Amino acid sequence: MPNPHTALPVVGMVGAGQLARMTQQAAIALGVDFRVLADSAIDSAALVTANPVVGDYRDFHDLAAFAAGCDVVTFDHEHVPLGHVEKLASSGVLVYPGPHALPYVQDKIQMRKRLDELGAPIPPWRHVETVDEVEAFAATHGWPVIAKAASGGYDGKGVWLLTTPDDATSLLAHREVHVFVEENVPFIRELAALVARTPSGKSTVWPIVETVQSDGICVEVIAPAPGLDPARAAEAQQLALRIADELDVVGLLAVELFDTPAGVLVNELAMRPHNSGHWTIDGSVTSQFEQHLRAVLDWPLGDTAATAPFTVMANVLGGDDGNEGLARRLPEVLADPDLRVHLYGKGVRPGRKIGHVNICGDDVASLRARAGRAADRLRGGQA
Amino acid sequence: MPNPHTALPVVGMVGAGQLARMTQQAAIALGVDFRVLADSAIDSAALVTANPVVGDYRDFHDLAAFAAGCDVVTFDHEHVPLGHVEKLASSGVLVYPGPHALPYVQDKIQMRKRLDELGAPIPPWRHVETVDEVEAFAATHGWPVIAKAASGGYDGKGVWLLTTPDDATSLLAHREVHVFVEENVPFIRELAALVARTPSGKSTVWPIVETVQSDGICVEVIAPAPGLDPARAAEAQQLALRIADELDVVGLLAVELFDTPAGVLVNELAMRPHNSGHWTIDGSVTSQFEQHLRAVLDWPLGDTAATAPFTVMANVLGGDDGNEGLARRLPEVLADPDLRVHLYGKGVRPGRKIGHVNICGDDVASLRARAGRAADRLRGGQA
Repeated sequence: MPNPHTALPVVGMVGAGQLARMTQQAAIALGVDFRVLADSAIDSAALVTANPVVGDYRDFHDLAAFAAGCDVVTFDHEHVPLGHVEKLASSGVLVYPGPHALPYVQDKIQMRKRLDELGAPIPPWRHVETVDEVEAFAATHGWPVIAKAASGGYDGKGVWLLTTPDDATSLLAHREVHVFVEENVPFIRELAALVARTPSGKSTVWPIVETVQSDGICVEVIAPAPGLDPARAAEAQQLALRIADELDVVGLLAVELFDTPAGVLVNELAMRPHNSGHWTIDGSVTSQFEQHLRAVLDWPLGDTAATAPFTVMANVLGGDDGNEGLARRLPEVLADPDLRVHLYGKGVRPGRKIGHVNICGDDVASLRARAGRAADRLRGGQA
Repeated sequence: MPNPHTALPVVGMVGAGQLARMTQQAAIALGVDFRVLADSAIDSAALVTANPVVGDYRDFHDLAAFAAGCDVVTFDHEHVPLGHVEKLASSGVLVYPGPHALPYVQDKIQMRKRLDELGAPIPPWRHVETVDEVEAFAATHGWPVIAKAASGGYDGKGVWLLTTPDDATSLLAHREVHVFVEENVPFIRELAALVARTPSGKSTVWPIVETVQSDGICVEVIAPAPGLDPARAAEAQQLALRIADELDVVGLLAVELFDTPAGVLVNELAMRPHNSGHWTIDGSVTSQFEQHLRAVLDWPLGDTAATAPFTVMANVLGGDDGNEGLARRLPEVLADPDLRVHLYGKGVRPGRKIGHVNICGDDVASLRARAGRAADRLRGGQA
């Protein structure tokens, strides 16, 4: 049921974090009516949309009531119970990504099984329940090993570096979810591929970017990845497009990659707008947020070309002086006239992602310095 | 009183048309809390902001109640009664543009008197109350003459071409507002300059654009104006910056210009985001909407450089098959992947401005053709 005033479709997003907030900017341009199911009325996207619905995505009734007012339902995060999504879809709601695709991002073990089936390159891995299994894996692949929770992790949470069997013992004693181990592959750097795909199977891919993490949190993205061999870039793009096809993803698929001497390896997948694509708001003809809307509406996809030689994105993390500190320093940071600031309207807590900055230009080193300085200053670092 | 959750300022805009709607997109990025005073809950910007206030800007109590929740008040249109703005300002509300600047856009006779005082180049004009006065003016400046209402005009309304004394007779018999006549100056084309200025007097100017009108409505903008002599462009920019300074404008000032063999002449002024600046959303580092927010908040202004050799904007006017027709044709138009579509969520009526498209690139002729085709198709023209 399109909006009665505009006749344009209503897109509902479950979750009202910063991804929903930035999707609202794209929805405004397209004239699409965008609604969010928020945990609270002061969620990032709830602050900037008309009539946000406050409800619990874990409660099927809240979810179904929200979906009843939408033409298409999509997600700001991967945590909606799969059974609920299946029920929505089987009752005729258009839900993207659909219940056949979501398991591969809700459960990282299923993801890896499926990627293995597809012959997609991934680091060696093994589902483990005992320390013996970890030791057997390490015997082949060497210590340390990476351990990951199959579900519920984000921004470095749910990932552990195990350097000894003792580490494995203490982790497995306390685990509440399935855990697997992965070879600690030596990589040159991390890359990411971002694809959008429609229900009719059309897809586009943005230039491959380099992502820089610190303590498991993405802190910086450089688009395109500097000095990346064009053949390797094309390989990464083709890999991401193929995964999107094989998993029948609708909407966005982010593929986090390790760039290794032997080629790229898939690290993680996400089926939603992704931090590695925030640069597209200012650095690409079509932003990931607009593309996500076009994709879930089965509309033609936009051009993914970069609009500048380089765009650098730096995440803004919360400092220790709250929202007042951020607000006080914002005008100072805006004095760099080329900096594009994106704040999320969130409560500032130390280390929390509360915004990002983008900057476009020719000289990567200078762009990185300017973006990094701005992000650091917004966090409360010295000028 | 900044927003209690974000500690960032609250900017209130009186009016909730498309200018407010697009300002909301910029406010989302800056983290600024943006509120609108709307005529109705289905106004363009009311559809995309949280908690729009519905009220009457002609009613001082509505206006004051709205202002009470804002750190700064600004405008989507020029129709707020000046006395109300004066009262708000004298009660301590930050109102931009302020009551000393607004008269020059609320009354085109005052505008022209002031521009004459400043020595700014404008077409010869005369306030007229009788047909004799029109004839006397035409005796010097020739028929036909342009007649304009001093207030209340927009998009070609309130402007008349008088070719004979009889035209003047019938106009003056029916006029309800002050009228003046202007020489029908021969011009090469129309240009526009757009300036942003802060309360502390800092200002920026975008590249000079060419505007194309049809039936008094702006239908197309080409940024920058193709083939414009750099000296003339600089002259137009300096003129606009000087007018903003002299009138102490805070926020945006649009200066519509005639490009004549003898130089540029000022045609009209507007003190708000302007149709001639819609190209900046996709074609400039900083959009006019973000710049307006920065200016009224007395924050540093952003870079006004163009991000592509040319950006063409075409207005989308309403067709005769309502919102359903528009919604049906939108996906088809989006098939041009480089086209940036901006719809306003308005009720479609024939000839009403309901959106615009932008497209960036190198070749002006091809960009104009693509933008024009898209706008025409959205209106209901043949594919």
